[in-house]
Amino acid sequence: MAAMDGLTAANPQFEQVTRAMFAGQPFMAYIGAELAAVAPGYAEIRLPFKPEVTQHNGYFHGGVIATLADNSGGAAGYTLLPPGKALLTVELKINLLAPGRGELLIARGRVLRHGRSLVVGAAEVFAVEDGRESLCASELMTLMVVDRRD
Amino acid sequence: MAAMDGLTAANPQFEQVTRAMFAGQPFMAYIGAELAAVAPGYAEIRLPFKPEVTQHNGYFHGGVIATLADNSGGAAGYTLLPPGKALLTVELKINLLAPGRGELLIARGRVLRHGRSLVVGAAEVFAVEDGRESLCASELMTLMVVDRRD
Amino acid sequence: MAAMDGLTAANPQFEQVTRAMFAGQPFMAYIGAELAAVAPGYAEIRLPFKPEVTQHNGYFHGGVIATLADNSGGAAGYTLLPPGKALLTVELKINLLAPGRGELLIARGRVLRHGRSLVVGAAEVFAVEDGRESLCASELMTLMVVDRRD
Amino acid sequence: MAAMDGLTAANPQFEQVTRAMFAGQPFMAYIGAELAAVAPGYAEIRLPFKPEVTQHNGYFHGGVIATLADNSGGAAGYTLLPPGKALLTVELKINLLAPGRGELLIARGRVLRHGRSLVVGAAEVFAVEDGRESLCASELMTLMVVDRRD
Repeated sequence: MAAMDGLTAANPQFEQVTRAMFAGQPFMAYIGAELAAVAPGYAEIRLPFKPEVTQHNGYFHGGVIATLADNSGGAAGYTLLPPGKALLTVELKINLLAPGRGELLIARGRVLRHGRSLVVGAAEVFAVEDGRESLCASELMTLMVVDRRD
Repeated sequence: MAAMDGLTAANPQFEQVTRAMFAGQPFMAYIGAELAAVAPGYAEIRLPFKPEVTQHNGYFHGGVIATLADNSGGAAGYTLLPPGKALLTVELKINLLAPGRGELLIARGRVLRHGRSLVVGAAEVFAVEDGRESLCASELMTLMVVDRRD
Repeated sequence: MAAMDGLTAANPQFEQVTRAMFAGQPFMAYIGAELAAVAPGYAEIRLPFKPEVTQHNGYFHGGVIATLADNSGGAAGYTLLPPGKALLTVELKINLLAPGRGELLIARGRVLRHGRSLVVGAAEVFAVEDGRESLCASELMTLMVVDRRD
Repeated sequence: MAAMDGLTAANPQFEQVTRAMFAGQPFMAYIGAELAAVAPGYAEIRLPFKPEVTQHNGYFHGGVIATLADNSGGAAGYTLLPPGKALLTVELKINLLAPGRGELLIARGRVLRHGRSLVVGAAEVFAVEDGRESLCASELMTLMVVDRRD
């Protein structure tokens, strides 16, 4: 996966750091989400269908779609952090454009702007049905850079 | 629980309909959420702590907080629907104000405006730690009225 | 006007500072907006009707409503700043709930949370028609605390 | 200007209708905004600098940036409407990414999804300084399709 235009990672271990952050979240494992790809300013999360993550009609739940959007934008931001820093989600806004119907959800997060104290990210979420992707949500979010406490 | 000011339910069975909608969502059961209270224009959802719904630091995950906000605002909207109608979330925006730390999350959804085709809702989410509530998120959302297909 | 619950100003000259910030914005004077009230964590802006600030149907323009919401939330945040600090709007989200119809717009901004680096605000905008107020917009926003450069 | 991928106008007079809608808004003329380009699913609005539309530091005011984002996304939606229909902004969310500094603002609106009752749009706003464009805001919005009343 290519990096976003013009973005380079400040931390050569950006992928390891981002994957460790993702792996440290029990909720991601609980719903079955996987961090599928990482590049400077970009992250992709995949979630195979299972009945536990659905709403009344058997489609992926809106809360699950929002969770993936949040985490993919956040992971994209992580790739650009200097060592010793972490990100917290300040806020997010998501439009659900179509039902999340199919065998797989793919969230693609990217960084719109990264500053010393704030990062602005965006994500698109796609539902894959019979192998065909369609856009099901668009998200815009703000994250805050904080010191990491391990 | 009192109804929101000036709001009355168009459907005398509003509580039954709202509870059936909530009960029909496998994801709500999976995370352990309960619809604790329903009144015209108002709904409250509670989620006891369990490790599976946390982020890296052991607090409630932001995606879980957003899910509860979404569902409590949506359930609040359901209470005002005429028979035969349902709601879909069009979009939501949430600010995470403080960590979701404690033994319980409580989301309180309410209706700001309900029209024939759109409903605008809001929700506040509180974390309860050692019995003390504190505001951890504020949400603003839009829902669309659709015909129910059972 | 009473202060928001539990909020006190860190700067005894909070009203003077907030009014100076407001007065320094040429766009506020251009549309005819006035800072009508200031209290710790609260600010109210009023805009009398004039044809220049309308959309196609003679109602207040949505961009004007958003501008007032933005500024009232921002001014509310200003009241709580320590000396030497200023605020920048990071993002805002606004729901337009009803037409802005009438002889006056009133935006009431308030602070939901104020930290050292970020402030989260909210605003409600009311249209006054024949002396009767009705809610026409609800807003949720994030501001960043920066050093003041005079 | 090319149309957005895969979008075609339902109304052969889409440009005339969109331009008439824009021209009918006194606030657009008051701030000095011009509808610079229209294509199916796309609209571009330009606003040359003048001191009246600035904030305290002489940059374009955030409310003006939001107004342009709103109108460019709305105008983009208008291009896809069937005859006899109009759009109302339901809500918008905008992130201000950088100061609006320079001699010109350009807002580029586009349609993410258009349905029978709702349209979801997005806009990017660029500030042009010494001829060089830089992204200053990103917006995501929802519009409602209504019958036109002339």
